[in-house]
Amino acid sequence: MPLSSLDRATIREHIHGARPQAIVRLIGKWHPADIAPLFADLNPDEIRFLFDVLLSMRRADKTLKELPRDLLADILAVIEDEKLARMIAHAAPEDAVVLLDPLPPERRAVALEHAEPDKRARLNGILRYPPGSLGRIMSGDYVALSPHLTGPQAIDAIRHRGELETFFYVYVVGDGGRLVGVAPLRNMVIAPPERTLGEMMIPDPIRAEAMMDQEDAARLVTKYELLALPVVDGDGQLLGIVTIDDVLDIIDKQATEDMYKMAGIAGEDRVFTPARRSVRLRLPWMIFNLVTYLPVSLVIAMFEGTIEKSVALAAFMPIVAGMGGNGITQTMTVIVRGMALGELEFSSAWRALTKELAVNVAVAVVTGILLGAAAYLWKGNWSLGVVLALANIINTGFVAGIFGALIPLTLKAVGLDPALGSTIIATTFTDVFGFLSFLGLATLFMHYLA
Amino acid sequence: MPLSSLDRATIREHIHGARPQAIVRLIGKWHPADIAPLFADLNPDEIRFLFDVLLSMRRADKTLKELPRDLLADILAVIEDEKLARMIAHAAPEDAVVLLDPLPPERRAVALEHAEPDKRARLNGILRYPPGSLGRIMSGDYVALSPHLTGPQAIDAIRHRGELETFFYVYVVGDGGRLVGVAPLRNMVIAPPERTLGEMMIPDPIRAEAMMDQEDAARLVTKYELLALPVVDGDGQLLGIVTIDDVLDIIDKQATEDMYKMAGIAGEDRVFTPARRSVRLRLPWMIFNLVTYLPVSLVIAMFEGTIEKSVALAAFMPIVAGMGGNGITQTMTVIVRGMALGELEFSSAWRALTKELAVNVAVAVVTGILLGAAAYLWKGNWSLGVVLALANIINTGFVAGIFGALIPLTLKAVGLDPALGSTIIATTFTDVFGFLSFLGLATLFMHYLA
Repeated sequence: MPLSSLDRATIREHIHGARPQAIVRLIGKWHPADIAPLFADLNPDEIRFLFDVLLSMRRADKTLKELPRDLLADILAVIEDEKLARMIAHAAPEDAVVLLDPLPPERRAVALEHAEPDKRARLNGILRYPPGSLGRIMSGDYVALSPHLTGPQAIDAIRHRGELETFFYVYVVGDGGRLVGVAPLRNMVIAPPERTLGEMMIPDPIRAEAMMDQEDAARLVTKYELLALPVVDGDGQLLGIVTIDDVLDIIDKQATEDMYKMAGIAGEDRVFTPARRSVRLRLPWMIFNLVTYLPVSLVIAMFEGTIEKSVALAAFMPIVAGMGGNGITQTMTVIVRGMALGELEFSSAWRALTKELAVNVAVAVVTGILLGAAAYLWKGNWSLGVVLALANIINTGFVAGIFGALIPLTLKAVGLDPALGSTIIATTFTDVFGFLSFLGLATLFMHYLA
Repeated sequence: MPLSSLDRATIREHIHGARPQAIVRLIGKWHPADIAPLFADLNPDEIRFLFDVLLSMRRADKTLKELPRDLLADILAVIEDEKLARMIAHAAPEDAVVLLDPLPPERRAVALEHAEPDKRARLNGILRYPPGSLGRIMSGDYVALSPHLTGPQAIDAIRHRGELETFFYVYVVGDGGRLVGVAPLRNMVIAPPERTLGEMMIPDPIRAEAMMDQEDAARLVTKYELLALPVVDGDGQLLGIVTIDDVLDIIDKQATEDMYKMAGIAGEDRVFTPARRSVRLRLPWMIFNLVTYLPVSLVIAMFEGTIEKSVALAAFMPIVAGMGGNGITQTMTVIVRGMALGELEFSSAWRALTKELAVNVAVAVVTGILLGAAAYLWKGNWSLGVVLALANIINTGFVAGIFGALIPLTLKAVGLDPALGSTIIATTFTDVFGFLSFLGLATLFMHYLA
């Protein structure tokens, strides 16, 4: 039941009329994911009013955690400390981490004031893991039992443990809390009653260390089709779990970041980001883009004499550079996405590079011939056609193929994000070499062109 | 345990030495996802040998379904009909659908020859749903029970049902198989033993029709944090389920397709796709890109007189067009990704458009002034600086902002994929208007430029 603009207007009227009960009646049965977008359009007073209503419904935590991080930070900034602390006090630990994360460190301490000491200690522990690591998102919402329990004993233990948000596996731990196996809940339900966890468990299960990068962990989960991944410390002691729904979020985020980096945009710059902030986020990339035109302009300026002799060349100038830019973007996208999905396993770096080079050269030969023929038909000069075809083969073939593969492969090899290369950097190569090859060849062939 | 090049070489030796047992010993305990990449580098004879080994291990189905669709089609093409039919006969129905999907229709019938009549009927039913619909990927691996059963009775029924790959919920069905509720397995384990499914179920659960687009269903699952989505027909009768691990695959695929469309690449064109096929897939886009330069070249040709009078303009030509191209790519990426993630809920189409326009104009004013100042410093001509700054504001501000938002919003409004716009089409706008504004203004100001 997605939010309609009618609902938005009604809620706003109720806020202005100070009618909290009317809001409760309207949104009482809504899913938090449907309530969250209401916050997008409100001013600070309206935000505080709606927050109070949700807090009184005990739904502020579940609702706010649905907000994109950026919007969440804005909302939290206008909420009073005391109310923030009340929300954190009764939020589930995994939700509390999401809500505390965008806060400045000094406000985190205040927000944790009403939380029970145990929970506060756990939350502070989680927040010490670096952002982007598994430790940051692991949940304590799991069942760890001894290998000596039988299925029915285990089910009893789970029943006493009470409410669990989602669970699929019972983790079997030995001495000192070390993870020794995992027993799927369905096995416990289906197995003969006398069978122990130790007998029915899958020993030595796939696990990840808390310092592991979230994206790497997400690929483990998708590759091996797990529902939850146990998180351990360096000694193999079980610390928490990461479930498949967290993995969905990580995968969405990684895809967004890769698309964004390729286009030269910051990850926080979203449809709903205030215009002022989007400007601040995009300006550095655009100024950087402007700077990359310095070598491009210098190359063209070198050939002013050539253009002066045959001004008809100007109309063809953007083509060789632009075709190369498109070729390098295609190659980079295939390589970057292939790395993100772990598909390079089905090939290899060297084979990927030689293949991309071969593909780009083949495409450049065909498009070069078409371009040359079109230029000949238009201007009636076969030398112009040859120059364009050759320049296209050099730029759209060799330059785009080699650099399009080499940039992300090299970035990955030195431990950087392969998508960082971005089309801004990549197309600088194809611009420089595009104008250099086209105008350079035109200068050599000037005798036949002018 | 990802595949090493050493393992690859060893397997190949065993294939050439015709030592199936040695292969079984080596890969016996490997996960299918780790075995599948072995197929990438083999010739048809080697493929048939490795397939026979896997078939004898009864692991051919699980392994082959891990292959990317494109590679799978190549492998299946060289497998003998009879062996293919044997693999399908003992594959789980969901796996069988994946394996049958890339086959030409006439081979599908042959491949289904050894399957039991029930299974064959189900598979044929699934294959009648259109590709991309939920019906195509739904699984029959679920438990549907009457609302009158108690928790322990339900657990008994599940135990008799036997092996289930993954399950999270028991679906409660009324008369004629209509879905009336869902009972999480954990509730059945935790609830008092006398409670019936009808009492503990969540009534009227979120569901989807079999004809629904897979991507829309994936967004339902992520938004409402479901583990499985029941699939029904038009009358509400339960047909199957789609689980969260299928949703992960859909989301990965959607992100790939969006990135690919934006870069002008076909979805099947991957790192491991044979070069010959990649060439065939990329050529149409590159030829299309070439054609888009026709209006661009015509615009420049219109201004040959201007360039002749002041050839120094040539060095600045790519900048205004290129800056606009980058600006329109940023805006399109934000809008396309925002739609894919459902983030436009936190904003709205009209607000998104006006915001993108404002952001692009603000960025264009700043970069325009910087560009103008740089040109003045280089050439010592203030008119050139003014022309560049104004052209940049028109192109990188207004053209990129308006078309960057309008293209994907319009495509979506008329029911097409918003990513279809692609940077190839978008940058044609910024190229045409970039050269038009720069060279047009230069013509107007020629008196001061030359």
